[in-house]
Amino acid sequence: MGSYAMTGGATGIGAAIKQSLRNAGHNVVVADIKDADILGDLSNPEGREKAIAAFREHCADGLDGLITCAGVAQQMKDHAIIASLNYFGSIAMVEGLEDLLAKNNGNVVLISSNSAPMCGSPDFVDALLGNDEELARKLAADISGHDAYSGSKQAVARWMKHNCAALAAKGIRINAVAPGYIETPMTQAVADDPEYGDAIKQFVASIPLGRPGQPEDIANLVDFVLSDKGSFICGALLYIDGGHDAMMRNDAF
Amino acid sequence: MGSYAMTGGATGIGAAIKQSLRNAGHNVVVADIKDADILGDLSNPEGREKAIAAFREHCADGLDGLITCAGVAQQMKDHAIIASLNYFGSIAMVEGLEDLLAKNNGNVVLISSNSAPMCGSPDFVDALLGNDEELARKLAADISGHDAYSGSKQAVARWMKHNCAALAAKGIRINAVAPGYIETPMTQAVADDPEYGDAIKQFVASIPLGRPGQPEDIANLVDFVLSDKGSFICGALLYIDGGHDAMMRNDAF
Repeated sequence: MGSYAMTGGATGIGAAIKQSLRNAGHNVVVADIKDADILGDLSNPEGREKAIAAFREHCADGLDGLITCAGVAQQMKDHAIIASLNYFGSIAMVEGLEDLLAKNNGNVVLISSNSAPMCGSPDFVDALLGNDEELARKLAADISGHDAYSGSKQAVARWMKHNCAALAAKGIRINAVAPGYIETPMTQAVADDPEYGDAIKQFVASIPLGRPGQPEDIANLVDFVLSDKGSFICGALLYIDGGHDAMMRNDAF
Repeated sequence: MGSYAMTGGATGIGAAIKQSLRNAGHNVVVADIKDADILGDLSNPEGREKAIAAFREHCADGLDGLITCAGVAQQMKDHAIIASLNYFGSIAMVEGLEDLLAKNNGNVVLISSNSAPMCGSPDFVDALLGNDEELARKLAADISGHDAYSGSKQAVARWMKHNCAALAAKGIRINAVAPGYIETPMTQAVADDPEYGDAIKQFVASIPLGRPGQPEDIANLVDFVLSDKGSFICGALLYIDGGHDAMMRNDAF
């Protein structure tokens, strides 16, 4: 069966994807800060380098896929961590494992968010896309947690599209999913936060479909995109949010 | 098993979706101009009314799904047909079958296109979304076939998003897929066209993934969206185009 690398597989969406891949018989190597094959902190360059080296050792024969789920939400007080983990913690993995992915015509799925369009800080997104981690961390400190989170997820989506054609030329197919509100430990921390809790509860109540998502909803979509049945899907940002984005941006396409 | 209504199931993408649903044991009733359960022309109001009446008779107990695939491409000399069939031929079906879809918590999938963002005639799209078929047909006559086609598909995508929340409140989940170049009789007619042929061949050669799509690629995605595994996907415009949209609009999200 296939060989997969994942970040953030300990809880939430990542854990559901990991479980689904393992249930299908795949070998999945996970990097996370706890309960993982590779223990480490992807929010700093040294931690990322160590994780990449460990992935390269575990998966030396090639990678069939990479799914980057490690991320923190807007209630994280140190916004620089949001920038470093959510964006650089994803992108660095793709870059650091590109040759192993090319070897097996691998698939990459990045986790973006349906909040990607909500970021009110274009300079912050530009710093991320410009690969300037120092500037991005500095700018993150001066914007809201919500702008830091949504901006990190917007940059993930745009990086994916910027690099899609070059990766495809190497035999690597890349896509991103944009979940809405999913019930996970990460979003529970936001719902419990004194600053963001009320807004999040109102947000959840306004989901057109009438329910929040479950980690398995995202795992099902990721499974499909990774499979041969999804093999013409490339460069897509796939919203899966119970209708929230359509409601809020009904002329976007 | 489920009861499904489809338009345009005789050839191409529609035929692949029909076959896949029937293979899974579903009852599928198809309206098309040939080789269909309901024979008729959806490019005029009378044809649409007759088709709706026939669907209502065939599927009186409720509908688990509706997939609207009937459409014509840009080489069609009479651009008014592009407007009437691609847009009104889809939307009228959703409106005319809404109560039967609500009865079974049905799913709707509309076929848009990755050309939706390429339309250079916003007035034409506004006329479609404004439900002014007469004006849309008049405007279509004065624009290129490419603008008429892409505009009709943009309007389909935006109508879906405008109506997503109201339909969700009635228990109906709606989404749209945005295929890129798929090898079908419809796109073959464009490739064979003296005006559009060369441009389409260049377009196909530039697909990042290195191959055109097959009708089965779209059927696989539609199957997934219709299934319980895709049940949190709502109001989404799902690009499936081998990376073309990401290449052309790499900052869109």
